Formats: sequence, C-alpha cells, structure tokens
Amino acid sequence: MAGSSFGNIFRITTWGESHGKGVGVVVDGCPAGLPLSEEDIQQYLNRRKPGQNRFSTPRKEDDAVEILSGIFEGRTTGTPISMVVFNKTQRSQDYSEIASYFRPGHADYTFQEKYGFRDYRGGGRSSGRETIGRVAGGAVAARLLEELGIHVQAYAKAIGPVQCETIDMEEIWKNALYMPDAKAAQAAQEYLNQCMANKDSAGGIIECVADGLPVGLGDPVFEKLSANLAKAICSIGAVKGFEIGDGFAVASSNASTNNDAFHMTSNDQVEKLTNHAGGVLGGISDGSRLILRAAIKPTPSIATPQQTVNLSGEDITCVVKGRHDPIIVPRAVVVVEAMTSLVLADALLMGMSSTLDRVRKVWK
Amino acid sequence: MAGSSFGNIFRITTWGESHGKGVGVVVDGCPAGLPLSEEDIQQYLNRRKPGQNRFSTPRKEDDAVEILSGIFEGRTTGTPISMVVFNKTQRSQDYSEIASYFRPGHADYTFQEKYGFRDYRGGGRSSGRETIGRVAGGAVAARLLEELGIHVQAYAKAIGPVQCETIDMEEIWKNALYMPDAKAAQAAQEYLNQCMANKDSAGGIIECVADGLPVGLGDPVFEKLSANLAKAICSIGAVKGFEIGDGFAVASSNASTNNDAFHMTSNDQVEKLTNHAGGVLGGISDGSRLILRAAIKPTPSIATPQQTVNLSGEDITCVVKGRHDPIIVPRAVVVVEAMTSLVLADALLMGMSSTLDRVRKVWK
Amino acid sequence: MAGSSFGNIFRITTWGESHGKGVGVVVDGCPAGLPLSEEDIQQYLNRRKPGQNRFSTPRKEDDAVEILSGIFEGRTTGTPISMVVFNKTQRSQDYSEIASYFRPGHADYTFQEKYGFRDYRGGGRSSGRETIGRVAGGAVAARLLEELGIHVQAYAKAIGPVQCETIDMEEIWKNALYMPDAKAAQAAQEYLNQCMANKDSAGGIIECVADGLPVGLGDPVFEKLSANLAKAICSIGAVKGFEIGDGFAVASSNASTNNDAFHMTSNDQVEKLTNHAGGVLGGISDGSRLILRAAIKPTPSIATPQQTVNLSGEDITCVVKGRHDPIIVPRAVVVVEAMTSLVLADALLMGMSSTLDRVRKVWK
Amino acid sequence: MAGSSFGNIFRITTWGESHGKGVGVVVDGCPAGLPLSEEDIQQYLNRRKPGQNRFSTPRKEDDAVEILSGIFEGRTTGTPISMVVFNKTQRSQDYSEIASYFRPGHADYTFQEKYGFRDYRGGGRSSGRETIGRVAGGAVAARLLEELGIHVQAYAKAIGPVQCETIDMEEIWKNALYMPDAKAAQAAQEYLNQCMANKDSAGGIIECVADGLPVGLGDPVFEKLSANLAKAICSIGAVKGFEIGDGFAVASSNASTNNDAFHMTSNDQVEKLTNHAGGVLGGISDGSRLILRAAIKPTPSIATPQQTVNLSGEDITCVVKGRHDPIIVPRAVVVVEAMTSLVLADALLMGMSSTLDRVRKVWK
Repeated sequence: MAGSSFGNIFRITTWGESHGKGVGVVVDGCPAGLPLSEEDIQQYLNRRKPGQNRFSTPRKEDDAVEILSGIFEGRTTGTPISMVVFNKTQRSQDYSEIASYFRPGHADYTFQEKYGFRDYRGGGRSSGRETIGRVAGGAVAARLLEELGIHVQAYAKAIGPVQCETIDMEEIWKNALYMPDAKAAQAAQEYLNQCMANKDSAGGIIECVADGLPVGLGDPVFEKLSANLAKAICSIGAVKGFEIGDGFAVASSNASTNNDAFHMTSNDQVEKLTNHAGGVLGGISDGSRLILRAAIKPTPSIATPQQTVNLSGEDITCVVKGRHDPIIVPRAVVVVEAMTSLVLADALLMGMSSTLDRVRKVWK
Repeated sequence: MAGSSFGNIFRITTWGESHGKGVGVVVDGCPAGLPLSEEDIQQYLNRRKPGQNRFSTPRKEDDAVEILSGIFEGRTTGTPISMVVFNKTQRSQDYSEIASYFRPGHADYTFQEKYGFRDYRGGGRSSGRETIGRVAGGAVAARLLEELGIHVQAYAKAIGPVQCETIDMEEIWKNALYMPDAKAAQAAQEYLNQCMANKDSAGGIIECVADGLPVGLGDPVFEKLSANLAKAICSIGAVKGFEIGDGFAVASSNASTNNDAFHMTSNDQVEKLTNHAGGVLGGISDGSRLILRAAIKPTPSIATPQQTVNLSGEDITCVVKGRHDPIIVPRAVVVVEAMTSLVLADALLMGMSSTLDRVRKVWK
Repeated sequence: MAGSSFGNIFRITTWGESHGKGVGVVVDGCPAGLPLSEEDIQQYLNRRKPGQNRFSTPRKEDDAVEILSGIFEGRTTGTPISMVVFNKTQRSQDYSEIASYFRPGHADYTFQEKYGFRDYRGGGRSSGRETIGRVAGGAVAARLLEELGIHVQAYAKAIGPVQCETIDMEEIWKNALYMPDAKAAQAAQEYLNQCMANKDSAGGIIECVADGLPVGLGDPVFEKLSANLAKAICSIGAVKGFEIGDGFAVASSNASTNNDAFHMTSNDQVEKLTNHAGGVLGGISDGSRLILRAAIKPTPSIATPQQTVNLSGEDITCVVKGRHDPIIVPRAVVVVEAMTSLVLADALLMGMSSTLDRVRKVWK
Repeated sequence: MAGSSFGNIFRITTWGESHGKGVGVVVDGCPAGLPLSEEDIQQYLNRRKPGQNRFSTPRKEDDAVEILSGIFEGRTTGTPISMVVFNKTQRSQDYSEIASYFRPGHADYTFQEKYGFRDYRGGGRSSGRETIGRVAGGAVAARLLEELGIHVQAYAKAIGPVQCETIDMEEIWKNALYMPDAKAAQAAQEYLNQCMANKDSAGGIIECVADGLPVGLGDPVFEKLSANLAKAICSIGAVKGFEIGDGFAVASSNASTNNDAFHMTSNDQVEKLTNHAGGVLGGISDGSRLILRAAIKPTPSIATPQQTVNLSGEDITCVVKGRHDPIIVPRAVVVVEAMTSLVLADALLMGMSSTLDRVRKVWK
C-alpha cells in the first residue's frame, strides 16, 4: 500500500508539501447525509495554526480550507470530500543551505537515501504542514462521531517535566498550551521560557479521551481498536510512544489491581468499576471511556550548533536557521484528536456487520 | 478489512481457537527460493510453548507445526505457505462455569456484545494460543530477514518491578525468563514466587532490537515503520504500551540531548553518534539499531476472588479455575520478535520500488 | 497485496497445490450467528468434483471438507472459518517429463520465469484444484446470501458451438453438463464425444444470475459491483472474457433500445421494464436480476502432439500424458457461482454504511 | 474499502463531480526520480476533451490540469502527486427537471436509493467528467511504463456495427474516431450521422494493446493480471464486457487451435508462435503482446422520449435535454489506455519481490 492513505471504509488520502502549492486531503467513505460545512473543518484547523502565542512560530499562515467536492446542499453525498489549503504565505527564502546537509532529528537523511533526492524546502512532505490533511479529515470524522453521541477530546498532559495533576476539561480552552490544569500550565510556560532562552526545545505528553463509545468497536487479533489507535498515533511525526489505559504502568502492577471488575448499574447495564484497561478489552471497545497517551519529542529544529554531515560526506557543524516552535505539543493536540477520531469512525463503519442480525437490520 | 490478516505484500492470515481443532496461519507473498523447513518454524514455536518452567502453565502442549503448502524441494515457491498446529491435548473439561460469566480483564464481555454469543472454551479466539499463528508466520519472516543480514532479537527487559540493568545477549538463553541480566532474572524469579503465593500475577516489559537494517524502510505519513511496528506490537493480546527509541522519556528531554548527531565513519558511511531515535527518522529506518519496547499487563486469570457479572445480569464473585501462567512475558518474547520480523519483512518488500533506479534494477 | 486473498470485509484466503498435502481456505469477516455445517460446504464441492461423468477426468478425488475453526454450536462465531480438503488420492506418478518442458496453454512458463522454479506436480498452485478453496468459501457466502433472500445460480450457457436456446432452471440438475436446455445438452454431448475422438478439448460459456438483490450494492467509480464481478470471474483460471447484461452486444445497439425504461409496479415499487443492463446501473445493483457471463477456454491438456520448448531451451514436440477433462465448463459452473456469491456477500457488508441513517440503525 | 482508490503500490484516488468546483486525482506510490510535467498529463487529457469534432458534445471544456504536489525540480519525489482540473465553464443551467426523475440508463436511481439523495447536476459523481482523474493518473503510469520500454495503445475497434478490418497504428491519429482503419472510420462516421438524425446514440468496442512487457506481471489466483485488467476496464462507466486475447471466441474453439505453441527465437528467447491468449498465461504476463477489448454501451442521454418514473413515484415520459455525445467511444479510448497503464504500473511494482534473488538485487 502506498503510504498516504489511512483507514478502510472511512479513509483519508493526504498530499502536499510545506512549500508546494498547497496541502490537502480526500476523505472517502463518509456516509451520505452528514451536515458539513467549511466552518466545521476550519475550527479544527485553527487549533493547529501557528502564531497563536509566543510558544509557536510567528509565521503567519492563513490555512483557510476549501471544500472542492462531496458536499451538496450542505450535506455529504457519500462521494469523496476533497479539501485543500493553499500555501499562501511561504517566504521564498533561500534554502540552499538546508539543501546541503542533514538536519539532526529530521527526516532529511532518510528521505535522501530512500528517494535519491528530496524536496528540501521546509522539510517538504515531512513538514508539520502534512498534518493539515489529517486534521481536516479528522474534523469530518469528529462530525460523524458527534451525530452518534461520541465525543473525542485531547489535551496536553505534560510539557517537558511539568505534569498535570488535575484534569479540568474547561481549563483546556483557557491556556495557550491546551493543558487541563491551570497551575501546570503556568509552570509549563515558565519552563518553555527557559528552553527558549537556552535556544533549546521541549517535548511532552498528549492524552486523548473518547466518551460515548458503544461496545464492540475493533476486531480480534490484528485489527484491534488499540492496535489501530497505536498506528494512527505513532504515524504522527514526533510521536515516540503510545499508551492505552494504564500503559507502561501495567508492567509493574498485578492482576488483582489491574483487572477491572464488572458490576450491574442501577439501570441494568454492565459496567466496569475501574478503567485500568482504558476502554478496550481484547482490543474491542468495552463501553467505558477510551484513554490513550502519546509521547511527543522535542522539536528537532534548534538554534544551538549541532554536529552533522553534508551531502558531500563531510562532518560539519550546523545551526538551523529560521524561527521554529520551541514545542509542538500544543499544536499537536488537535492532531492526536483527529487521528483518534479517524480510527473510531472507521471502526464504527467496519463493525456494522459483526452479526447476521445487524446485517438484517440494514438490508431487510 | 477482516481482522485476521496482517501485512501488505508479506502477509499472514491466522485462524483458530483454543479448543477447536487447531490453530494455523497462511503466509502469502513470501519471495520464492527461500530455504524453509518445519524445523525452522518449530524452533520459534518451542520458545512460546507452555510448561517450560514453573512460571508457565504446566499444561502439556505439543504444538508441533505441519507445513501444508508452499514449499517444494525445501524452498518456498512464492505461493501461500499454510501451516497448522493441531490442538491435541486440550482437556475436555467442564466450561459451563466460565460460559456463564465475564472474566475480568478478558475479552469475554466484548466478544459477547460484538458477536451475540461466544466460543467460551479456553477463551476461544481470544486465547493466547492465537499467537501460534503469529509466531509461525514470524519465523518465516525471520528466515527471510536472515538471508538479508538482518537479525531481530527480543528479551524481557523487566518483570514486574524488576528491571534489567545490563544487556548481555548470551544471558537471554540461560534463564527461564529470557532476561539479558542474570541478576535481574534471579530477582524476578523471587518476585514471581511471591506473586504465585499471593494467587496473583505479574506483568513486564519486552524489548526488541533489530540489527542490519538498510536505510529506507517505511514510508512517510501513515505507513511509517514506527507506526506499523506500533500496530503490530499493540495487536498482541496483553500489550498496553509501545515505545520506540527513548519512548516516553523524550517527553521530558530537550532537542539538544534528544537529537542524534550525524558523522562520517572511517569507511565513509553516514552514522548517528547516538540513537535516541531508536533507528527511525521521519518514520523511516536510518540504518542504526531498531529498538522498541512493549508493556505487558499481568495475566488476568488469577485464583483470587473477583467481582463480576453473569450472563443473567447478576453481580457475582468469581474465582477463575484451572492452572494459569503467573506471567506471560517470557512466552510473549518470541511473539514480539515475530511481529517485529513480520513488519520488517513487509517493509523490505514494499520498499523496493521507491526509486525509478530500483525499479530498473529488477525489470531491465 | 499478496495474491491469494479476495474481498474486503468478507474475505477469503486460499492455499494449496495439486500434489501437496491439501488445499484450503480461510474465510474471514463472516457475520456471527450464521448456521453452517460441513454438509453445507460439501454439497458445493461435490458439484466441482471430477469423475461424475465421462466428460470429466476419471481421477477419483474424495474432496471431503473439514472445518477447523470459526464454528461453535453450529453457528459462525465471527472469527475465521478455516477449511481444508486433504489431497488423498494423488497418484505418486512420474512427473519428470512434465518438469522438463512448458505445456502450451498452461502457466508452466510464466511460473518458471516469475519464481525461478516451479512445483510442476500436476500444475502445482495453478492446478484446477486451487478452485476448491474458492468453492468452499463461496458456499459460506451463498449461505449468508440465502439468509437475506438472495439466490445465485450458474449454468452452462454454451458448450463449444452449442448454445442453449431455452433456460429451464430445473433442467440444470438433470444433465451432466449443467445446461438449462435438454436439447442443447444432448447436442453438446455429441460434440464432446467428437472432441474426445479427435484427442481435442472444448470451451464454453457459463451464465450466472442472482435474484433478490437489494438496490445499492457496489460503489461508484472503482468499486463498482460490475468491476468486482469482472475481477472475480476473470480470476478463474480458464476465463478469457466477461459480460454483464447484454455484454458485447451493446456495442452495436442503440440507446433507444439498450436503455431500460422505468415504471411503477402495482405495489408501488420502481422497476425496470427490460434488463439490458443485467442488474447494475452506474455499477450499483438496481434491484433487477443480475446477469453475467464468462467465456471458458478449452482445457489446454490434450493428447495431440504440440510444439514447445524444454528447460534446456530446445524446441521439442510434446504429448501431455494422463487423463484430462475434455471440457471443464460443467465443473467450473459452481466456481462461477462461488465467485459471484463472494462478491455479493462482500458488497452487502461493505454497503451497510452508505448513509448516516443506516449507521444509526446499527449503532443507536 | 472506499470506492475511489485504485491500485496497491501505484495507487490513485480520484474525486470530484461534474458541476462541483473541480475534479482531481492523487497519485501515490509513484517511484521517485521520474521526469514529469503538466504537459505530460495535458496531452492525455486533451484526447478525452469534448468538442473535438461533431460527434462529441460541443460543450467547451478547458480541462487544464494543475499539479499541486509531488514534483520537485521536474521529477517525482516519491510522495503523492495531487492534480486538479477546475470546472470552469459549466453552465449554471436549470437542473430542476433532471432532479425530479430518473434518467433511463443512468445512475440516478441507484444513487438515490444508495445514498438517500443525490447531486443531480450533470450526473454528479457518475458523470463522465469523473474519468479526468483516471486519465491524469494513467498519464503518470504511462510515463513510468515508457521509461521501462513499455508502450500502451488503445483505439476504437468498432463503432456500432462497423468493425475495423485492418489495424494501422498510424491511422488512429488521422481520424476523429481513433479508428486504425481509414475505411471503417469513414463508414462509422456515416453510421453516426444516421444515429444523430434518429436522435439516437451508438456504442462500440475499444481494443488496447501493450508491447514491451516483461514476463511475470500479475500473481496466481486472485491477483491475476487479467483479473485486475478486467476490474480496471469494467470500472469505466459505460463498459459492459471485457475480453483478453481471443475472448469469447475461445468458447467455440478447441485446444489444438487455441493453445499457443512455444519455440526458441534466433536469439535464444522463448516465444509463442501465436497469441490467442492475448499475452497472459495463468494470469501472468508471458512476454508477448497484451491484447484486451472493452464493450462500450450507447450513450444513455438521448433526445428521444423515454418512459421513466419521477421522485413522486409517478410514471412519466422524459426527454433528456442538453447536447450530448452521440457516442462516447472516441473519448473513452484514452480512458481504457489509462486504466490499462495503471494496472501495468502497479503490477510492475508489486512484482519486484517475487524471488529472493530480486529482493537481494535491491537491498544488497
């Protein structure tokens, strides 16, 4: 399979480079009849836009989305939804330097070796602008989930060494870092100021939860919901780790603690008393809250001198020019949310035929 | 996509339940001309067999593999390799109890809801025996990798709270827990004895490394090598977390530390001076060692009484009968190795056409 | 994608060679709760068995199917259904001759070039025995279709130059050639006797119809129902042509004739007055009878001397030994039926999410 | 799988409707380093443009392609090539009539039933403009094939009842109907004049050949080259039949005639003496010319009154307004060529790993 498509029935195909004509996505397989507007997409894109605060790059990008197909009279028609964001404000800067060497922590070297040459302008296809297609596609998925009573929400759980100690969903929208803990957000900003002073950058942890999921999403063995979430999240550029539920903490736990007991609720529903599993059992959604986390590495572009090699095979010292985000976690929050939404939307559509009774519901 | 296939060109399809007639796998897309015997497969299967020591269930399973197709005169023919392990020694025990309630930490409840009923005998398709197909398929992949000078090796990095402090690859084969640190292995065994005394179980961390990889495996965006590894590993039953390279530690690191500097080796090769990235840059293999980790949860079957509900919707207390592994980490080591090998084999075959020059090498 | 899987949600993976240990199929994605027995499968396999009359090879093959997984208490569980037919009665004959040259009309030459060597015993993977997996898988699909009121029926429309002039569905079961016209069947048998006397073989045309289909199967553009049927049918070994509805006759027709007019039935249903389209409009099922045809070439193995080359690159004359079918059309009838059923079953499952309303029906 | 993608490694995803903002395609998986310009694409698109002669609709469409991504310094980068043709000259006509009923021979009824409503303007997604994406994608595939010495050429073999009797490849470019026989082209034009006078339309047969193919494209069983070609061709809107080699004529042939004998050429190559098979044996390319045919139905839009039903469920008589092609065969010639090229390009890339030796060629 070529690498720019994701999903089975609900599937996106993204395209575009940092300094080409634009970036975009084709969303195929979305059910017909879903109300959808450019504004629905734009509000997601706005959350990943740079220049929103001093911790993101002051490059001004409009990132205005245009829907080119698949909508008629305000609703999806069941045919591909093509969306594009034209690259308007890229500076026609001199990239001759960056073209000549491999930036540490970037994909320059691997692209060069894999493809024989590379579009070095702003990182080309490996630029963070690639995530625009993910977010636009994820916004459509989120709209579909919403119609089914499912809500997905991501936030910054940690910025560098600063961890959130409380989770206040309202707070997420009140600070520039999308942290659900005001105190942590304050401490994180101070930490970031220090990173910037050091010409360095920071990483963090993004947590994402989904509420309202039915039991039964995901398939046994290779198409577990957790496996597809892992792939989705680890396909995001800077992600180096993935957890679901208690994650790595399970390694030192015991079953007597880690197993989630079942009980009957007052309205006769099966419910888990705890949620160490994070919403999946045997890789299939169990009706409780889905909880996952992604580890985001520090932005590799820093103004500190670094050792590297150039295209002529010589050892050199480089200083990556330009103004770069000292942290990408806040802008990546909506990307994690988008990828999670895409996996859930596809699992919902793929899971409709699990029983003969369900097949009969639709076809008879 | 149905859930029991994995991979694109090099693809496996597994089948079978714990107490059905057998379990098996069809390996499709393996290049022709690879020398392969049942013994090649059996030595991998033997590493996941139960009953090898007191920390794995004393159930005696032969797990003798039979190759049914795809081999002629000792070599693969390019057509599907079908392999089966017949279930020989399953006790015809009474499963009426297990049939009537949902075991905490197992897939009983989600299977029941997804499919309307379930094969409750020994967990059916969600049993650990499902991994036999993965391991048999992974053994074929490993044989292919070996021909290309690639070696994959997994081991237990931690058992419960006991972490390895040294990595001695020879030591892995000397202790029952497949730990690369003799002292840690000793401490881990003591910890497991205590778990058993408590009628409890333990989890752990499995680490897997691959050496000899060329630069260029994996594709940008959704088919990153790291993304496919994440899916492969998180599709294994008890896995709750995945890391590549420094994993979650990157969250509190800085780019000045986390970026791996490049330099030229004495024989004019580009090389990284460190390997925080774990062998991938931009999701594409960078020629250095691949390093990943999986978090394994404690075996959910324990003899301690647990709260749950039965099929009639009543709260009950259950005690899971039978003799179960107090830990599955040692047996899962080879499963992690198998899944890693499968991803690498597929990435090698998928990556052959990245440039026009490579296409010409084969077709002209 | 490796070549031995077919279908998306309802997917089969076949394996096995003519003279290996057996042939088989894994059916993945079948909805849970479908009553299914080995007898359901066996009755389909019996229709492709050789030795049923003098026009098929007198080799005695038992072809007894065994279900190895995926069934519990007589119903499908939603997990893979693995089926095997062990090769019992293959004569351990001398294949050294066939190994040394390329039989005209067979895949010997292309297999040799593609894979570097080949399993020459009885054609290996390119043998007609490969269709056992298709038929066993198709039998499961047919059972599913039956539950939804859909019936698929194939028959021999022409044997060599002898065409059926009437279609009497009862008659199909009354003659050895599965022709729906008794008179044509009689003429065809005389024609085949003559072919055999000439040490030659014959081809024919198989027609397949499906009744009871809902409107809406298949997707616009590349996943048209007609496109997937074309692939399914043309993937059968000896097929050289495919038609739907009026097929090639449309080329010399006019729209005023070829367009099917709509009208309202007495019970207020939209109905077509004619069916030149063969049941699809825009590649999507239109609720009328599906009609397709496959052109089958004459069995290439004949006792007449033929010019060919051997592995040493010398021109030689060969006479293919053994007893071979003078025609495969009658045995291929059930294979066409199976492939059609597989496409329809998959289209039904894939088509469940075409509208938001349908998604709500299952998930809310 | 959603329906708007085609191919495995070399894969296109198309989007767009007749009267939306535009139509386009994303080509993923094209090897890096292929020289490619907008002009390469445009010359293919020009061949399907309307208004080139009196037998195609006089609507003026610019159909100017714009490449939005995937090209750097004149060569493909290995990342997705996004191409768009904006819809510039669509008349803002009144579609209220067409919205209210189902045109016979069109997809109006099946779209309405499948999706609950439809974009009725100009046929929406089921319009012939959908083929722009196929042709643009196919042009990229054709450029790749050219680099490997493979040439694909389609032409009109028959227009209505008028068949070509000679095949003169030069002649194709000399008449408006893309027929390789000047005399037939003359007769066909007279036939079409008569159709137009009758307010009727005509169909025809398109033949496509490919020269320079290596042996070994396509896989056994379901991914036969012939099966994928059948799907590709039958996915084109008006196609009702597909043949490879002798096609339906094999049904009344005998093996002694139909089998292609092998011999050694003067420069020691294996060669077939005839080519009844049309270039595939066992579904795998055999090194001889690939020959396939597509049956194209008469354009369904005609000015003759037709019986149909409206959205209110009433029987009505309709006359489809607007100026429509009396035949689409000439414009579909390049579409058949494009789809054939796409299948061949994908088969080339998928077939690179058939042997261990080939894998070694690239990776060692």
